[in-house]
Amino acid sequence: MKCEIIAVGSEMLTPFRQDTNSLYITGKLNELGVTVAYKTIVGDRRKDLVNVIQTALSRVDIVVLMGGLGPTEDDLTREATADALSLRLRRDGAVLASIHARAAAWRMPMPENNLKQADVIETATVLLNPNGSAPGQWLDTTYNNYRKLIMLVPGPPNECKPMFDAECLPRLREVVPRRHIAKRTLKAAMIPESQADKLLAPIYTTYTDIDTTILAHAGDIQLTLLCTKADQETAEQRVEELAGKLEEALDDWLYSSEGETLEQIVLYYLGLRQATLAVAESCTGGMVAQRITGVPGSSRSFLGGAIVYSDPLKTSFANVPPEMIAKYGAVSAEVAAAMAEGIRRRTGATLGLGVTGIAGPTGGTDQKPVGLVYFAVADAQKTDTYDRTFRGDRDRVRQWATQQALDLIRKKLM
Amino acid sequence: MKCEIIAVGSEMLTPFRQDTNSLYITGKLNELGVTVAYKTIVGDRRKDLVNVIQTALSRVDIVVLMGGLGPTEDDLTREATADALSLRLRRDGAVLASIHARAAAWRMPMPENNLKQADVIETATVLLNPNGSAPGQWLDTTYNNYRKLIMLVPGPPNECKPMFDAECLPRLREVVPRRHIAKRTLKAAMIPESQADKLLAPIYTTYTDIDTTILAHAGDIQLTLLCTKADQETAEQRVEELAGKLEEALDDWLYSSEGETLEQIVLYYLGLRQATLAVAESCTGGMVAQRITGVPGSSRSFLGGAIVYSDPLKTSFANVPPEMIAKYGAVSAEVAAAMAEGIRRRTGATLGLGVTGIAGPTGGTDQKPVGLVYFAVADAQKTDTYDRTFRGDRDRVRQWATQQALDLIRKKLM
Repeated sequence: MKCEIIAVGSEMLTPFRQDTNSLYITGKLNELGVTVAYKTIVGDRRKDLVNVIQTALSRVDIVVLMGGLGPTEDDLTREATADALSLRLRRDGAVLASIHARAAAWRMPMPENNLKQADVIETATVLLNPNGSAPGQWLDTTYNNYRKLIMLVPGPPNECKPMFDAECLPRLREVVPRRHIAKRTLKAAMIPESQADKLLAPIYTTYTDIDTTILAHAGDIQLTLLCTKADQETAEQRVEELAGKLEEALDDWLYSSEGETLEQIVLYYLGLRQATLAVAESCTGGMVAQRITGVPGSSRSFLGGAIVYSDPLKTSFANVPPEMIAKYGAVSAEVAAAMAEGIRRRTGATLGLGVTGIAGPTGGTDQKPVGLVYFAVADAQKTDTYDRTFRGDRDRVRQWATQQALDLIRKKLM
Repeated sequence: MKCEIIAVGSEMLTPFRQDTNSLYITGKLNELGVTVAYKTIVGDRRKDLVNVIQTALSRVDIVVLMGGLGPTEDDLTREATADALSLRLRRDGAVLASIHARAAAWRMPMPENNLKQADVIETATVLLNPNGSAPGQWLDTTYNNYRKLIMLVPGPPNECKPMFDAECLPRLREVVPRRHIAKRTLKAAMIPESQADKLLAPIYTTYTDIDTTILAHAGDIQLTLLCTKADQETAEQRVEELAGKLEEALDDWLYSSEGETLEQIVLYYLGLRQATLAVAESCTGGMVAQRITGVPGSSRSFLGGAIVYSDPLKTSFANVPPEMIAKYGAVSAEVAAAMAEGIRRRTGATLGLGVTGIAGPTGGTDQKPVGLVYFAVADAQKTDTYDRTFRGDRDRVRQWATQQALDLIRKKLM
């Protein structure tokens, strides 16, 4: 079955705001075996809305309308949907009572406008909204003699997503022909994009019954495999088979088969080895630490470290001898190694990381261009150093360097 | 004039990828006085594409088609646009030559498929693409006897945006009736959202000739004012007048009138006062440093600091006495103050910042709930401490805390 998602709201036709709910809803629909064939963004003009809804009804089976259910004059999704279907609105007594009760509980005065939210399209089912005042609506109806399912859900993500999960999905499951879907997500780090394609495309393109999506971002590659079959076992088997081959091809690049982030994997290995980590960051300026500490419970293995942005701090926090900085430069393999060793010794961590480089846009030379970054990982036995040159602007260089740093720690622990 | 932006590509109908070019193009179109009335996302099926293009031509004056111009079988925007307009494709000799030249320069074999990229709709003008192999196309044509402008531009952002700027905008400027537009962006930090609305709405809603957009994110509020008039001076005057009133109302909350980020403003003030900054971060785990070091040239005023995630590091890097941690707890005003003072003394910075809190999801108590964060800013004379409780998940608490920390430094320097 085919679906169109319509996001309603003039603010999403400005340069400043974008619909994001539809990504979530698309994921949920795909798991049911429903394809999203179109997405449309339309403003708050009733005429435009009616036009868009009728266009959708003429080309898909399922229409999800998000937004435009609030109490203001601009909120016209109810009215436009009724227009598009030549149906009428009725003011629902139960919804009216709950709107009054809500206002009373919050001790808020109740503007006349709010009553609009109790307008329900005749034949529609009211969908509860525990997180806001605007209820949703579900319509199982016909348009030009074809059966159509229409959902009206609120725009704010914290209202939209729970309502879609609790009210729309169970109803859709009853109507949509049961499909059996298997899904796997593989993640790999620091594999060059062109190499990834050369390596993986010959494998996954032979599995024409599996929908393989590849996402790449700053040294991170995510492969999602989705397979729909008449029975669950066959779907799982097919995905398992392809995943196995891809995992083998990805070899050391693969860091996760269950969708975890690279920092979660690093923390997992640290826990497994009962090891701790401390970092000394220069050009990444706290990005490595920030990614690691974004994971709940990271304090069990991550001690912290230092942002040694200035040279004196490289000395005072990471014990890098000033003469070494003078001799080799702050951006050098020697200084990266000294940073890793110094921060390790200063904190008593099992592993020390050092990162120093030229993030740009200025500061590069012929010998040491913008994008050059030195890394070092130290343990009690030895210190390994690496250098990489990343392309792109300051932000991109820092993102790649952070990803590389985390991946070096992963490989050290593997 | 009204425009529809159509993003072509099945990958944008998955849960994983989203069109972002349209935000950029919308901004450019708005500056010309063109309104984006619809955005549509459609997959790579020729029939669906023709349907979407014809729908667009029936409801707007200008259609921007992004993507589907590559060499693969899935790239069908050329063919579908020709179908929708009942026009033919011709293979363009000049484009063909440039595709051959490009392949030769890169010493790459030239697949037969690539020639497809030389197919140009009859009556269309070829748009140069210095950043890729697929040229764009510009059509000034009619549909059902109405004049229509149609642009075909590539999907990759690094090809799409430069082509739109260099090839489409100058042509649009010649056709679109000249409008005079004034624009201002105001930014404010840490003003509660409900208070912002109560404070600002009574002011800007009286300026019905100015389009005011408010964006709020984790303690950051951005107001964009856009005014279109018959002459530039009137437009500027109106925007200036409203901006002045809003600035007055925002008072200390306002940190920028020119669109700078909060970290840029902090660095600006540090430079102005010839002051330096060092940070000791616990719950924010490097986020403050990461935002500051994201600004090119930040090393002039930012020395670095420590991520004192574990208690021993609070002592060894920021001189916090262990007895103090034992007595008041690591999350306390006392420890935040000691962190700020300690990191300041250890680094020789003019200002020291300390941040310690409970980011969650666990670790909260009745007295110290998840979301509670203590801040301290120290200079040579004194140390100011603050506490705030933020709502939301771990990521949100950390984002709010980072914003608050930067704002406290800004206020200290003002």
